Amino acid sequence: MLTQEVRNTLFDVADLNQLKSGLNRLPAVDVGEFITDLSPERRAIAFRILRKDQAISVFEYLPPEIQEELINALHDSQVFQIVEAMRPDDRAELFDELPAIVVKRLLQQLSTAERRATATILGYPEGTAGRVMTTEYVQLRQGLTVEQAIEKIRQADQDKETIYYAYVTDDNRKLMRVVSLRQLLFAQPDTLIRDVASDRLIQARTEMPQEEVAQLMKRYDLLAVPVVDREDRLVGIVTIDDVVDILEEEATEDIQKLAGVSGGDEAALSSPLVTMRKRLPWLVGVMGLYIGAASAIAPFQKVIALVPVLAVIMPIFSNTGGTVGIQALTVTIRGLGVGEVTPKDTLKILRKEILAACGTSLSLGLTMIGLSLIWAPPKDRWVAFAAGLVMAINVFVAVTLGTLLPMAMKRLKLDPAMISGPLLTTMLDAIGFIIFLSLISLALKVFPI
Amino acid sequence: MLTQEVRNTLFDVADLNQLKSGLNRLPAVDVGEFITDLSPERRAIAFRILRKDQAISVFEYLPPEIQEELINALHDSQVFQIVEAMRPDDRAELFDELPAIVVKRLLQQLSTAERRATATILGYPEGTAGRVMTTEYVQLRQGLTVEQAIEKIRQADQDKETIYYAYVTDDNRKLMRVVSLRQLLFAQPDTLIRDVASDRLIQARTEMPQEEVAQLMKRYDLLAVPVVDREDRLVGIVTIDDVVDILEEEATEDIQKLAGVSGGDEAALSSPLVTMRKRLPWLVGVMGLYIGAASAIAPFQKVIALVPVLAVIMPIFSNTGGTVGIQALTVTIRGLGVGEVTPKDTLKILRKEILAACGTSLSLGLTMIGLSLIWAPPKDRWVAFAAGLVMAINVFVAVTLGTLLPMAMKRLKLDPAMISGPLLTTMLDAIGFIIFLSLISLALKVFPI
Repeated sequence: MLTQEVRNTLFDVADLNQLKSGLNRLPAVDVGEFITDLSPERRAIAFRILRKDQAISVFEYLPPEIQEELINALHDSQVFQIVEAMRPDDRAELFDELPAIVVKRLLQQLSTAERRATATILGYPEGTAGRVMTTEYVQLRQGLTVEQAIEKIRQADQDKETIYYAYVTDDNRKLMRVVSLRQLLFAQPDTLIRDVASDRLIQARTEMPQEEVAQLMKRYDLLAVPVVDREDRLVGIVTIDDVVDILEEEATEDIQKLAGVSGGDEAALSSPLVTMRKRLPWLVGVMGLYIGAASAIAPFQKVIALVPVLAVIMPIFSNTGGTVGIQALTVTIRGLGVGEVTPKDTLKILRKEILAACGTSLSLGLTMIGLSLIWAPPKDRWVAFAAGLVMAINVFVAVTLGTLLPMAMKRLKLDPAMISGPLLTTMLDAIGFIIFLSLISLALKVFPI
Repeated sequence: MLTQEVRNTLFDVADLNQLKSGLNRLPAVDVGEFITDLSPERRAIAFRILRKDQAISVFEYLPPEIQEELINALHDSQVFQIVEAMRPDDRAELFDELPAIVVKRLLQQLSTAERRATATILGYPEGTAGRVMTTEYVQLRQGLTVEQAIEKIRQADQDKETIYYAYVTDDNRKLMRVVSLRQLLFAQPDTLIRDVASDRLIQARTEMPQEEVAQLMKRYDLLAVPVVDREDRLVGIVTIDDVVDILEEEATEDIQKLAGVSGGDEAALSSPLVTMRKRLPWLVGVMGLYIGAASAIAPFQKVIALVPVLAVIMPIFSNTGGTVGIQALTVTIRGLGVGEVTPKDTLKILRKEILAACGTSLSLGLTMIGLSLIWAPPKDRWVAFAAGLVMAINVFVAVTLGTLLPMAMKRLKLDPAMISGPLLTTMLDAIGFIIFLSLISLALKVFPI
């Protein structure tokens, strides 16, 4: 990463030559960050002085809105060179963000091969293997020897996203075997690749969700996985650098959905409007649900007027019960997210949660009784035992819902993280308050004060 | 992954030969999973019939408790072969889990080279680059030509964790350059590697936290990163497969800490006792904090008895305010976790959060007034405006604390995820309740009912 100091030096020198040699020497990702932080006019200048190959690499590291800005600011021929040289998967990602009219113009200018590659990728739905794959891989015919294969890899286009795996196909492009460059280097030069390459294929289908592709590569420690269509024909590969991004994206999405931030991940530095759009729906939803929960309390106002210590006690078991529920919910959703558990483990997890809840329930219930005894005026002390009992029950309800709800979502093929923390705590509040206040009302009827 | 069907077939055949050929053909990770699911006696049998090289690979995929069980069940000579052949980083991980006396015995039996490698790794604190690195990498001298370098890689031990990068060092083992196998293959055979290899070193120090190593490799799309000691001498490399695990582990830890699950990540299927140990401290802590919060309400019991609709309203703005706070907290902590923002962005983020809060605050405040008007009996309707006002204030307090607290933790070099959701909501409740009830008491004093 560039230190602030280096940035300032680069800024201050009006000498473009010095800036030029500096920017051409640095890693593309660092230059991308540097350019992103500049003002729009400076951005176009800094970008124009880059060497062509550096400009192409740097372009892929810029955020979509700045890519679009540069596309509008640069000459058409320059834009065309950059877009033509981009990797097909990065190009597809850019096209997703650009206005349709710009995409159409750019697509027309692309060479046939690049246009076809982009069209293939754009043909698959977002979030699938087909959409994140690249079409630049090394393909070998079955009959080659190891020496010929290595020679072929050496002559391959330097653009191939990885040369560390080569894919062996038959005449119909059907994927037959996979061989790593490592296997080739360690084999005798005159061996047939058929005898070196493995037919134990680990592959993804174009329609496989990207998080499953990531889990597959993680499980088998792969640097790239081949993607095949329904006829088992090789159409692309997904590489490890994409997988790292996918895993991080999915984790961010899970973590944010749990907190009630909706629809894709929100960057910490996005605009206030984006922030509101991502969060307000959940807040209004939660408040809406709370209308139900609070309507459950509203009829009990007389009881509360009689025993005001209830207003002190209720927030405690609401908050603590909510925490218990969120703990179980989070562990379950994360377990599903990293592929550690599946819905068929539901009973096993539930049994563990309920066993653990016995201890938790006892300790929280007793603490609740103790606390209520301290706060309640002498005449209301009996309330303490109802509070302890409801706290204990609440713990069981919380872990059960926290486990079963995401599992049920997963079984219904929905996103388990849609059961967010706020949704669960609201449900738990409603259940807890109704049980508690009903119990107190009943007691007041049987033994009127 | 093995289907349940395949498992049953493998189980049912008493024919060990068939099981043997089946287990020797499958990927090691699948066999590891299969063996983990067996009963202890069957485990030892299944493991014994594996081919030696397969046994070594499979062993690395077994959970530590089963590794320990097998170490006790197998012959010493068998155990020794396996441990000797393990990768130094995996071996260090195993030794972490084993009783000290077993580790001592195993270390004594290792060859000098392997013992030294393990001791080096175990010498670094957990969670640092030194601890997760491996010492099996390809090292080249500066004077070689490309052809000689490729030949050297070909002759290298097949055990090297990656051969896709080679590291060029001087006579004092100081790291000078890095070259990828790709660069070597595309270069002229008689070029000096000095002229092909890059001196733009991206490297980690042994004491660098593992998550920073992961972020570094992610940023520069590296398959491996060299690790150097304080004298810039090459001591190991960290490979991408470890990074994928580290990133996932760190995400799980963040997500669980946010939900108040303490100390490392909890597996969805861990034992009830582990579950209790990880969660109860937070629950008791949260309840403890709530004693403070509730003590703030306790003195207001008379006010509540006079205006019981307060007990209906308070849980709503407690829950909604908590949700607002958790949203801001989560986005900030995740932003820090993936390295997207740093404490110097605090003001930028705070400005965005406060701008977004203006809209949120207005809509939630108005909703609150509406709801309170519906529930309150006619004489208490004035309370609605206080509720709306406090709700609006609460939103600003929530986003401010949700942003500033984790940033402050980060600045103090503490883990930002220690500010968990339950901790924040408890603080927000206390603040909200005190402001609200004080406001109401004041109003009642000025305009007694």
